[in-house]
Amino acid sequence: ASGLPPHATPPAPVNPWASLTVLETVAIADWLDAPERALNLTPGSRVSIADNFIYHIGAFRPAKADALFYLDDPSAHGPPDRYARVTIHHGAAAEPYVQDYLIGPLPIDGKTGIRELTEVYHRDAIPYNARGYTTLAEINPILTDIMPSLAEATKELFDGVALGLPNDTLVAGAVGPLSFDGTFRRTWINWRRNVPGLWLHPVGFFLYIDMSGTDPREWRLLKIVYNHQVFDSVEEFMTAFHGGSLKRLPKRPDSKDVEWTSRTRPDTTPRDLDHLPGPRAVSFAGLRFRVDRATQYISWMGWGMYLGFDRDMGLSLWDIRFKGERLIYELAPQEAIAQYAGNDPMQSSTAWLDRYFGMGGSVRDMLPGYDCPHEAVFLPATTHGFTGSVTRQRAICIFEHDTGRPITRHMGYSQGEFGAVKGYVLVVRSISTVGNYDYLFDYIFQLDGTIEVKLSASGYLQGGFWESTQEGYGTAIRDTTMGSLHDHVINFKVDLDIAGPKNSLLFTNTAQEEVSQPWFEDDWGSTVLQQKITRKIIENENDALLRYPQNFQGGYALVNTEALNRWGIARGYAVHPGYSPIYNTVVGSKRLLNNANWARYNLAVSRRKETEPSSSSMWNQNLPGAPMVDFHKFFDGENITQEDLVAWINVGMHHLPQAEDAPNTRTNLATSSFFLTPLNYFDEDISMDALNAILLAPPERPGDAWTYEDYGVKAVHCVPPAVPPFEYVGVEAYG
Amino acid sequence: ASGLPPHATPPAPVNPWASLTVLETVAIADWLDAPERALNLTPGSRVSIADNFIYHIGAFRPAKADALFYLDDPSAHGPPDRYARVTIHHGAAAEPYVQDYLIGPLPIDGKTGIRELTEVYHRDAIPYNARGYTTLAEINPILTDIMPSLAEATKELFDGVALGLPNDTLVAGAVGPLSFDGTFRRTWINWRRNVPGLWLHPVGFFLYIDMSGTDPREWRLLKIVYNHQVFDSVEEFMTAFHGGSLKRLPKRPDSKDVEWTSRTRPDTTPRDLDHLPGPRAVSFAGLRFRVDRATQYISWMGWGMYLGFDRDMGLSLWDIRFKGERLIYELAPQEAIAQYAGNDPMQSSTAWLDRYFGMGGSVRDMLPGYDCPHEAVFLPATTHGFTGSVTRQRAICIFEHDTGRPITRHMGYSQGEFGAVKGYVLVVRSISTVGNYDYLFDYIFQLDGTIEVKLSASGYLQGGFWESTQEGYGTAIRDTTMGSLHDHVINFKVDLDIAGPKNSLLFTNTAQEEVSQPWFEDDWGSTVLQQKITRKIIENENDALLRYPQNFQGGYALVNTEALNRWGIARGYAVHPGYSPIYNTVVGSKRLLNNANWARYNLAVSRRKETEPSSSSMWNQNLPGAPMVDFHKFFDGENITQEDLVAWINVGMHHLPQAEDAPNTRTNLATSSFFLTPLNYFDEDISMDALNAILLAPPERPGDAWTYEDYGVKAVHCVPPAVPPFEYVGVEAYG
Ligand SMILES: [Ca+2]
Ligand SMILES: [Ca+2]
Ligand SMILES: [Ca+2]
Ligand SMILES: [Ca+2]
Ligand SMILES: [Cu+2]
Ligand SMILES: [Cu+2]
Repeated sequence: ASGLPPHATPPAPVNPWASLTVLETVAIADWLDAPERALNLTPGSRVSIADNFIYHIGAFRPAKADALFYLDDPSAHGPPDRYARVTIHHGAAAEPYVQDYLIGPLPIDGKTGIRELTEVYHRDAIPYNARGYTTLAEINPILTDIMPSLAEATKELFDGVALGLPNDTLVAGAVGPLSFDGTFRRTWINWRRNVPGLWLHPVGFFLYIDMSGTDPREWRLLKIVYNHQVFDSVEEFMTAFHGGSLKRLPKRPDSKDVEWTSRTRPDTTPRDLDHLPGPRAVSFAGLRFRVDRATQYISWMGWGMYLGFDRDMGLSLWDIRFKGERLIYELAPQEAIAQYAGNDPMQSSTAWLDRYFGMGGSVRDMLPGYDCPHEAVFLPATTHGFTGSVTRQRAICIFEHDTGRPITRHMGYSQGEFGAVKGYVLVVRSISTVGNYDYLFDYIFQLDGTIEVKLSASGYLQGGFWESTQEGYGTAIRDTTMGSLHDHVINFKVDLDIAGPKNSLLFTNTAQEEVSQPWFEDDWGSTVLQQKITRKIIENENDALLRYPQNFQGGYALVNTEALNRWGIARGYAVHPGYSPIYNTVVGSKRLLNNANWARYNLAVSRRKETEPSSSSMWNQNLPGAPMVDFHKFFDGENITQEDLVAWINVGMHHLPQAEDAPNTRTNLATSSFFLTPLNYFDEDISMDALNAILLAPPERPGDAWTYEDYGVKAVHCVPPAVPPFEYVGVEAYG
Repeated sequence: ASGLPPHATPPAPVNPWASLTVLETVAIADWLDAPERALNLTPGSRVSIADNFIYHIGAFRPAKADALFYLDDPSAHGPPDRYARVTIHHGAAAEPYVQDYLIGPLPIDGKTGIRELTEVYHRDAIPYNARGYTTLAEINPILTDIMPSLAEATKELFDGVALGLPNDTLVAGAVGPLSFDGTFRRTWINWRRNVPGLWLHPVGFFLYIDMSGTDPREWRLLKIVYNHQVFDSVEEFMTAFHGGSLKRLPKRPDSKDVEWTSRTRPDTTPRDLDHLPGPRAVSFAGLRFRVDRATQYISWMGWGMYLGFDRDMGLSLWDIRFKGERLIYELAPQEAIAQYAGNDPMQSSTAWLDRYFGMGGSVRDMLPGYDCPHEAVFLPATTHGFTGSVTRQRAICIFEHDTGRPITRHMGYSQGEFGAVKGYVLVVRSISTVGNYDYLFDYIFQLDGTIEVKLSASGYLQGGFWESTQEGYGTAIRDTTMGSLHDHVINFKVDLDIAGPKNSLLFTNTAQEEVSQPWFEDDWGSTVLQQKITRKIIENENDALLRYPQNFQGGYALVNTEALNRWGIARGYAVHPGYSPIYNTVVGSKRLLNNANWARYNLAVSRRKETEPSSSSMWNQNLPGAPMVDFHKFFDGENITQEDLVAWINVGMHHLPQAEDAPNTRTNLATSSFFLTPLNYFDEDISMDALNAILLAPPERPGDAWTYEDYGVKAVHCVPPAVPPFEYVGVEAYG
């Protein structure tokens, strides 16, 4: 019966991409805090933004050459030197700034050094304003300056106040980006009712705030906007309010209604038979995937991979091998944008890049039996922020899933033509909750060598205040709430290594042609209209910013032109579009000018560089005009034939909200994916080697029974182990 | 524990769309055979093509108004009159023809009448040549005339002969269409080695045959093609063969190799742990869907529907209701095209329309545990062809499936923000094997009102003979075999009735705009680039031949502009693209000139007509120039605002074959789907009413435990019932 997974044996005993342990982090923090470092650090527990403090400590991944040198013969070589990347906020500097450092080798000893990490960025300085906010609470000084003076109005207009007290009935949200190039830090504050599901309770009241620099006394209110009216000051607004010139929004019936934004089950008659638990998958003969918890290495049906996890983007997969061959060196999400539209200062100003918030840092425990099947094996993850380390025991889940359908089958008539192979898959999942939204990252491994990378969304919309001039920018989902139009685009780094690191980019295209042949008959005319395939190697990076062809007539693949399959064809893996293969609708918006240019395409392919580890950075959010990582700079005219290539592949969704997005968006429609799938990589379909398969033989004589071969695999039935009682622990924090 | 499903109670005790029973069919055949009908019928067991005989008997579905009249109050009204559609081949007529008849009402009695069924077709006569072939064996007379004279050559060139004997080592295939407009019947015969997986063993030898009319003595050989050389006669070919002027194809190493086209497991080391059975879903507390076998009515979680089944296209779904409201009157596949390209007479001449072969008639028993999970409930289907009736006990399977992921979830911080609803779905499946190909039809019902309609393919490629001039038309998958480039497009009729039968077609589109607002700051310039939605009702059918917008920026929905949801928005259902949302690449080919024009679009919407029950017919295959059903004629300028509308929606796949298509195509990539999904149809997400859900409450004080509500649904663990031994019965035939 199922239970603990069998133990995996990783190809090398050290995971070169493992996260830092809490002990390593403590040692690094202590070492940085030592007087000889002269960093003048303030402990995280009592920092202000005018202090120097450690914002983040994370593992810095080794150079690929170093990791491969180790992996190629782990008995002969030690693992690559281990380094930490440390982000320090120099708030106490005369000109405050942020700096990334490399610290290592680890563990800390006499040889440990520190240097500035700059080679992975496209500008030297990280402006302090680009930091956004460390916590939203740092904005409180100016809000508690402004809002009490507006309380009389907000009470009457919105039935709420924000006095800076725990029982405030209005709560602030801020939109990003907060800067264009780092020269300022300004945001639109929007107010929401302080109730469960507050994201769907905006009141339609906006403050534009300047919070540049580190001295809250210099911060100021720039504008107030209410119902399309603009005021330059509190006084101007209150004068209009008292004087009766303020054009008010109509009172609406749902201002008191909060049930609809709760996940509490509505009090309706349950559906027929829903009081019974639904079907539950059980591996009656035991789990068929292996896990090594120490290295976070997993294997299943010829697949093997190491897991990584970091603050910026959470789960990543490393050294993915299939049937003994390395296929992908690194598979890792890079960034998630959500760009909004609207007719109010909040929605028309929002362009989120969620790496800024930390999609790994915001992972919380998944719910056994709900987020993942009961049988799933959970793995922990730890990240290290300015307040300390946080571990979740259920950051990642792994389970084998019966898709309920065969991967291949045929019903023929001759011997050997009749049978099926069952469609099992291995799912590796992590869910990140970034404020209102929940992103489900699924990596789905299949028996034939295919991987589906799938991202789904749930959680709350970033709602807007609904009134008629919002028409065109979304949909009313309640009397005074709308879902605002926005695009999601999420970028993945896929460092495919097809039969070795030297690969080329193949573009396959089909089009219609008219041809003539000597055998054509007058019956059908002298020509035939038919399809034809054109295959082309794209030789230059500058031509590798790609969109799927019209009507998906062809596509893109990485191939190794020096490694042919048995039929003489370059072995390859195709990037096959899955659900919702879209790119960003808006091009050229100032709020997303150059900080997410990968989102303009379905995918792009560049030469792999140690200096280009990621398509984004946590500061890109607030530097659209002058980003730390400028994706387009990767594409500098280099040749990409038989080089080590990286594919940067997008998923996404045009989110036109609708009533059914309340209370939470449904993952079944809010889903997007791509496949990485063998393209003449093998000589034939290798999933035919499955034992969970059947082959039927037709009767020798009519009337005889059909016989079959099931390769000795029989369904087992026994009492499955009891499902343990549901339990949710939450995170473990280490100060 | 699981086992027999609980019993369903259909809304009406008679399924108006039920197939004919064997007894009904026998009675109809007997009635037709009576001397007073004067049809001069020959029994199916001994027909030749020069006889009159019953080719097919099937249920003719009632008029929608009649069916609804019954369903609206089944206690007050009887079911609609029952009719059969009978296809008779009048081979004995002076000018042979095919005729469809309507016979009824049933059961047969004094009131039963017969009339010609013509109102559903766009031409009166069904030409006898459009019948294609009744069985491929009818071509034998001419082949046994030709091939023995070629045996010396075929033995030497292909190591095979076709002498018309059971042990023939070459076997014929024929390509379609066999006619352009019914004035002739001609086909390219291609020869394959007579081994398992023969589809992948073409030898590259082609005969062009005229088989017009019913007298084989008038049939003749028009051309022989081998290695791009054309011969007008056997003599000419044999002269070249003996004289040494024949340019031969090179001998290739795999001419003897047949293992690779078998589904027999290769003799390789099994994968790690694959000797264990994979996870198996068990409904430990019993199945949660209901089935009424008598009416073939099923229900699950607020969904209910009747099933239908017919010879042409197999499974169809009727009167689909959700939460008490009719949503879809009819959901039924219509046609499946496969249009090939190539550099030989076979592949460049092939454009299949599989309704011709009978996608329902070619359904065979599914394999329990492989084609459907062990828990699946199977339902039978019966079809009636010229040789008699055939029943399969496992034509349809139904099962509840745990998708392994939540349909919604969020992790918030406030009361009511934290929880998940489990993502169960109900799958209704049928698999049709049409010669080489297996089509998996999946209808996937979800808790929120969404249906995913998904088609996947497996089975054998229609292979071609590989030589270098085929470059551009496919890929070598073996030394002498190629997979040929082709497109699949499959059309579904979806008679959505959104809050009643009167609906309109909404086109939603998004584009970029540049706007200015009074509150804009100089920080970001005086304008903002953002998205905006345009919503438009398409008023005329002629504008309703549709492709998805560029980058999927918007889409199509059927809405009822007179039925608003609580927020004032027209209730609707959207057609949301799923996997591989493509249309046919080739437009204007003579072999697909006007018989499958639906394939030029992603979808189309027309006014519903009793005279337009289907987008195709079984004779469309062989009448590209003058089809029985000309889809474009549906689009005759009618207004489609608040009318009863039908959406004709396509799935499909550009099939660029690859080595991994051998032996059989993989369903994971060869898959295409669309979603029918509520679009402001509800006031909120109604899947929130699920009991298989969890809601967590944060601790009242830090350190306290999280508490939760699971609505009383607990995992049950007990011994599941034993999985019965595998058994395959095959079809039951009634002569
Ligand atoms: Ca470059
Ligand atoms: Ca690479
Ligand atoms: Ca019409
Ligand atoms: Ca309708
Ligand atoms: Cu969204
Ligand atoms: Cu195909």
